[in-house]
Amino acid sequence: MSQTSPSSTHNLRADGARLWATIHETAAFGGTPNGGINRLTLSAEDGQVRDWFRDACEAAGLAVSVDALGTQYALRRGRDMSRPPVAFGSHLDTQPTGGKFDGVLGVLAGLEVMRTLNDAGIETEAPLMVVNWTNEEGSRFAPAMMASAAYAGDFTADEILAKRDAAGVTVAEALDAIGYRGDVAVGGQTIGAFVELHIEQGPILEAEAKTIGVVEGGQGIAWFDGAITGFESHAGTTPMPRRRDALLALSEFALAAERIALDHAPSAVATVGEAAILAPSRNVVPGRVAFTLDIRDPRSATLDAMEAALHAAAAEIGARRNLTVELARIWRKEPVPFDARVVAAVEAAAENLGHPRRRIVSGAGHDACNLAARVPTAMIFVPCKDGVSHNESESATQGDCAAGADVLLQTVLRLANAPAEAPPA
Amino acid sequence: MSQTSPSSTHNLRADGARLWATIHETAAFGGTPNGGINRLTLSAEDGQVRDWFRDACEAAGLAVSVDALGTQYALRRGRDMSRPPVAFGSHLDTQPTGGKFDGVLGVLAGLEVMRTLNDAGIETEAPLMVVNWTNEEGSRFAPAMMASAAYAGDFTADEILAKRDAAGVTVAEALDAIGYRGDVAVGGQTIGAFVELHIEQGPILEAEAKTIGVVEGGQGIAWFDGAITGFESHAGTTPMPRRRDALLALSEFALAAERIALDHAPSAVATVGEAAILAPSRNVVPGRVAFTLDIRDPRSATLDAMEAALHAAAAEIGARRNLTVELARIWRKEPVPFDARVVAAVEAAAENLGHPRRRIVSGAGHDACNLAARVPTAMIFVPCKDGVSHNESESATQGDCAAGADVLLQTVLRLANAPAEAPPA
Repeated sequence: MSQTSPSSTHNLRADGARLWATIHETAAFGGTPNGGINRLTLSAEDGQVRDWFRDACEAAGLAVSVDALGTQYALRRGRDMSRPPVAFGSHLDTQPTGGKFDGVLGVLAGLEVMRTLNDAGIETEAPLMVVNWTNEEGSRFAPAMMASAAYAGDFTADEILAKRDAAGVTVAEALDAIGYRGDVAVGGQTIGAFVELHIEQGPILEAEAKTIGVVEGGQGIAWFDGAITGFESHAGTTPMPRRRDALLALSEFALAAERIALDHAPSAVATVGEAAILAPSRNVVPGRVAFTLDIRDPRSATLDAMEAALHAAAAEIGARRNLTVELARIWRKEPVPFDARVVAAVEAAAENLGHPRRRIVSGAGHDACNLAARVPTAMIFVPCKDGVSHNESESATQGDCAAGADVLLQTVLRLANAPAEAPPA
Repeated sequence: MSQTSPSSTHNLRADGARLWATIHETAAFGGTPNGGINRLTLSAEDGQVRDWFRDACEAAGLAVSVDALGTQYALRRGRDMSRPPVAFGSHLDTQPTGGKFDGVLGVLAGLEVMRTLNDAGIETEAPLMVVNWTNEEGSRFAPAMMASAAYAGDFTADEILAKRDAAGVTVAEALDAIGYRGDVAVGGQTIGAFVELHIEQGPILEAEAKTIGVVEGGQGIAWFDGAITGFESHAGTTPMPRRRDALLALSEFALAAERIALDHAPSAVATVGEAAILAPSRNVVPGRVAFTLDIRDPRSATLDAMEAALHAAAAEIGARRNLTVELARIWRKEPVPFDARVVAAVEAAAENLGHPRRRIVSGAGHDACNLAARVPTAMIFVPCKDGVSHNESESATQGDCAAGADVLLQTVLRLANAPAEAPPA
């Protein structure tokens, strides 16, 4: 191999057909009749795809290690091994009725980057590393994204190892069962920067005909539980003005939440996802309703403003309708801004490749959002059909996957070949 | 006994204390620890209260007969036995967690009317009859009010006898088990007029400090099943303008139904009593909602106008939010106007007794609403606390019960002593 400068690699492209073939080859591990994947973390099928990934990485000359939570790290040497590796990847586990792209694209595009560099005989300054994070999905073990969270220091390895699935099996037992309890200390693998390629899992890029989303960060999220207490009464004998109808109060509140989100357009969202009448009956005025509320925005100040407006709406509705509207915040996660230099590298790569692109914020959680607390991080989004994900019908085009892999390739070349003082660890 | 004219009986009053005592004595049959009654129709407890009622009627010199559906008729002879009896009563069955007044008041006040006339030695022109209708509540066997419906010709006796409860027991078997399958043909008992005293089961009289409701008729009712089909999507990644949120559509529809009812104030009511998100999740935009709608008004034309407005609202919401709002009417019962002459008799009785009163429409269904199709009928309402009924906490005052019994007494005297050509049979 010979060292090459960024200027000499800017025409390099990933092999989109090879990437597409690996996506479909590995989809057989846990493949479902409907064309999706059922590959819960640390299942036998997850073990199979991990073995396939390890073998493919080793065949590409990478050195594969595994940490105590099963996360796989595949290292490609750089010219300056004193520099921390530029890492990229995502996850190979899926939802029980997951699709072929969520997580998988980021890992296999990472492998494709390595193969492309090998084929071109290119050596980077900093080493490169493709990573397969354990249990991003959270379907079998909670919390989701637990390995990247432990890497970032949010949990100890022992806390995670003791988590149990619905059958009572611990993470430790599940790792041992498939031989993936590795010897690298969790958090011990140094990473200089992290880039995650992922399908958008939303409709924006498709709707705007953009191929690449340059992800600036992850949204902040606040979750609330709500309860409305009015009075159950006879649907035939209770005049309208005398009613204390909890469902009508919920209706006003849900519409108020929509309006409050639109007041902070285009970034804010608000969702009443669950709502249930207690003891519902066709001929009884609903007296009690329980509901949930999910609000998100990339700015903490906007979350604060929305929360204040929501409480004001609840109080106004309750007073006017002579009932109580309770709203309790049960969780809040602050927005995660990605690293400006890594984001700029993604944007420059997309620009040089000539792909239609836009800045975007991740609406869903990703391992990258955890990594960002410790490592300069960004993400690359590509469109998925109708914004559908976590579904066997999840779909992305070969061209968009190849475009994402090209942007990933060019981004990591920029980062790995940049002067050594950056990015800061 | 001596025959007396209405003018000589206008100072006659029922014995409110005796009525109150019988209400509490019979409340022991199926009495609950919380002060309510669990006396499902044709249960052992219903058999006990029927026996008590038969014995009390016979002790008052009444001739008790039972029809093939178990309805009890207790006849007090009149001077002119060629006239059909003026009948009054209600039902002695209760909801599983029913109160002490629903139905019971009407039957026991009827008994009190008989006892009062006996004590005063008064003979009426037409005979009188107190009736205990089988299965008004419908909790054990559907439909509710089945005996009065069969009396009115809506069902044959055999249709009703074959109905089964949740345990598979037929009405015929349940009647036999307590010895109440009588020999009078259903509908064979001629009735000249019918008056039912009942608690309002609504809040209007209490709120307006009226003692007596002069009931003009029963409301018309229409029931609908509704379904909203939008699209489930990710609560974090789907921008507000791109959502097809079924819960927000339901919210707008429920508020539209409220507004449409208020457009026909004060009589109309509209209630979304059941509403459920299909596959609800805290972080998923609701894609599908099922709901019910109940609308009522005393005028058919108003029901028509409301239904048209509701369909228009559903179409407008569906088009604007890019989803479908389906609304299917599953049942409609036309309004039941009561007999003007019987209503006038109730009103005159209340007026002469000096009770604060108002015309009112029954929001709930009653045996009287079935009888009205065949027999000149009206009802008398008295207040109940907070409008609560079908609940162990159901409550009415001794004074209001006594006032209701007085109005019932004076009404039936007016009807029974009126010239024989009226009311028409």
